[in-house]
Amino acid sequence: MSELRYDPITDEWVVVATVRARRPDSFAAVTQGKPQMACPFCYGEEHQTPPEVLAYRNGSAPNGPGWQVRAFENRYPAFSLNGTPTLCCGERYRKLVGSGRHEVMVLSPEHDRHMAHLTQEQAELVIRAYVERYQWMEGNPNLHYVSVITNQGKEAGATLEHPHSQIFAVPMVPKAVRREMQKMVRYYQRTGRCLACDVVKHEQAGGERTVRENEHFICYIPYASAYPFDLRISPKQHSPEFTQMSPEQISSFARMLRECSSMLKHSLGDPAYNAFLHAPPLHRDPPPGAMHWDYHIRPRLTTLGGFEHATGLVINPTRPEDSAEYLRNQLELGNVHL
Amino acid sequence: MSELRYDPITDEWVVVATVRARRPDSFAAVTQGKPQMACPFCYGEEHQTPPEVLAYRNGSAPNGPGWQVRAFENRYPAFSLNGTPTLCCGERYRKLVGSGRHEVMVLSPEHDRHMAHLTQEQAELVIRAYVERYQWMEGNPNLHYVSVITNQGKEAGATLEHPHSQIFAVPMVPKAVRREMQKMVRYYQRTGRCLACDVVKHEQAGGERTVRENEHFICYIPYASAYPFDLRISPKQHSPEFTQMSPEQISSFARMLRECSSMLKHSLGDPAYNAFLHAPPLHRDPPPGAMHWDYHIRPRLTTLGGFEHATGLVINPTRPEDSAEYLRNQLELGNVHL
Repeated sequence: MSELRYDPITDEWVVVATVRARRPDSFAAVTQGKPQMACPFCYGEEHQTPPEVLAYRNGSAPNGPGWQVRAFENRYPAFSLNGTPTLCCGERYRKLVGSGRHEVMVLSPEHDRHMAHLTQEQAELVIRAYVERYQWMEGNPNLHYVSVITNQGKEAGATLEHPHSQIFAVPMVPKAVRREMQKMVRYYQRTGRCLACDVVKHEQAGGERTVRENEHFICYIPYASAYPFDLRISPKQHSPEFTQMSPEQISSFARMLRECSSMLKHSLGDPAYNAFLHAPPLHRDPPPGAMHWDYHIRPRLTTLGGFEHATGLVINPTRPEDSAEYLRNQLELGNVHL
Repeated sequence: MSELRYDPITDEWVVVATVRARRPDSFAAVTQGKPQMACPFCYGEEHQTPPEVLAYRNGSAPNGPGWQVRAFENRYPAFSLNGTPTLCCGERYRKLVGSGRHEVMVLSPEHDRHMAHLTQEQAELVIRAYVERYQWMEGNPNLHYVSVITNQGKEAGATLEHPHSQIFAVPMVPKAVRREMQKMVRYYQRTGRCLACDVVKHEQAGGERTVRENEHFICYIPYASAYPFDLRISPKQHSPEFTQMSPEQISSFARMLRECSSMLKHSLGDPAYNAFLHAPPLHRDPPPGAMHWDYHIRPRLTTLGGFEHATGLVINPTRPEDSAEYLRNQLELGNVHL
């Protein structure tokens, strides 16, 4: 079981994993070539994973081949569901022990099928599967935030090559999420408008940071991005709930995800990236007019150094306007295969 | 000149560098073997750097060989001093243009002299030089926070091999720093005690997270560390000001820095690391009883993934207690050369 430990000086929670624990001397070990093992996410290797909790199949039996998308608990979960989260141990050494959830979702049966190369149908299935697992976690009153993420490439933290996502649910609202919610609620109370909707309108009007747009979604690089090519995909209509997309919106979102992944892959030499959903916390009921989910794709092109670790201020070596223009040009030049 | 841009949703400032700017297409370029150039931080290559602003010399002429520690402005500064910082551009697209400072300090004339292998005398000179440049920046009313950092190794963001530090001064108080100050001031107002002093006493008494202790300093791994082997070196006596160390304290701090660097280097296979000072902001005058500087050494042993980027919650795969015990054991086994 993992512990969430609280630092009274930084006011930050940290997850100290014990199930996933690495022995301290493992960091010193020289990396050995690992024995070749069959990929546990490929067809025919379903017995290597925990039992599936979701699978889109055409009549095939559970936990065998014949699926299009498949999800199961992480074999080394950072969090698991076992009882009620318990807070303990006083002011300076506070910890929260208990409930959470950590699942893996395999995006397709094909070992090398990068998000950029999923078929439209397959990408839509992936999003439907995200929504389905999100709704399942939402049903648990002990879970307060759901995080849907994809690590693509070793430098982004992926330990297995076969493209997959992870879905985490945690027993508290992470501070960064709470702070964003508060900012958006305050803006709404003051102006009667959604802050994210206002930003989207401004980006649409200006266009210099816009990368791509379709019927329901816009992809832009935020004005104050901390990372080069930090893509944000946002619904153009006000959208407080990730789980409330219409079939047309799911289709439009799937297309945008495929296109943005392609642009990064073909314009930047297939960089590693982290992709993640940003949605409101569960069970908080902020005014529906205030909240707006979005989705981030963050290529790993820079290294955080001591200044960033010391101050939390990140130095972005490239203007967002220049990054967006570069991606648009690459598309026009025919260098991106959508 | 760089811009500090503000994100109204995340409530975070970001540095968008223009002097250091990387052209967007540089990220796609295949890395070519660089032409071999003489290291600009070595003896005899002083003409390759901007003019020195500090050098400890025994009578030799400025900007030539014959020095022990040497500092100059960064050739590609993230910040530079040019006028009064100016805030502009309204609520959703705020930016701060202007003053800051970014220096480089070369730790010794020797190209391969890792911090772990500095002589005691040389390490003391480095700390004296930090203090001197810190005090110079403190004298400027437009500078509100000074950050002294060392990136060791490529994975930690070092672009040149020759061991060096960087000193940044920024025209605002970074949010993480402000929040820590507020936490410490509130604790002091409520209890009459310094929170960091209380933590140090608790760590001394318990000992399970203590790595090393000498007359004036303790090195421990914080209870809620986000990273494996995240060393924190703290003065044992209450110490609000980094610049107020006695000669004995400087000597004791230098010894602790050398020993901790050795422990990481020899116990963990010479990992890349970021080291940084954490000191209070300038010109804020919090109650002196409330503040306490410390120094962090953070080896780069893990990779942040999408969950960390999405939530700000970091997963530490190793318990701090286990990391501290491992380092103590390595020392006892004679595997660390102090």
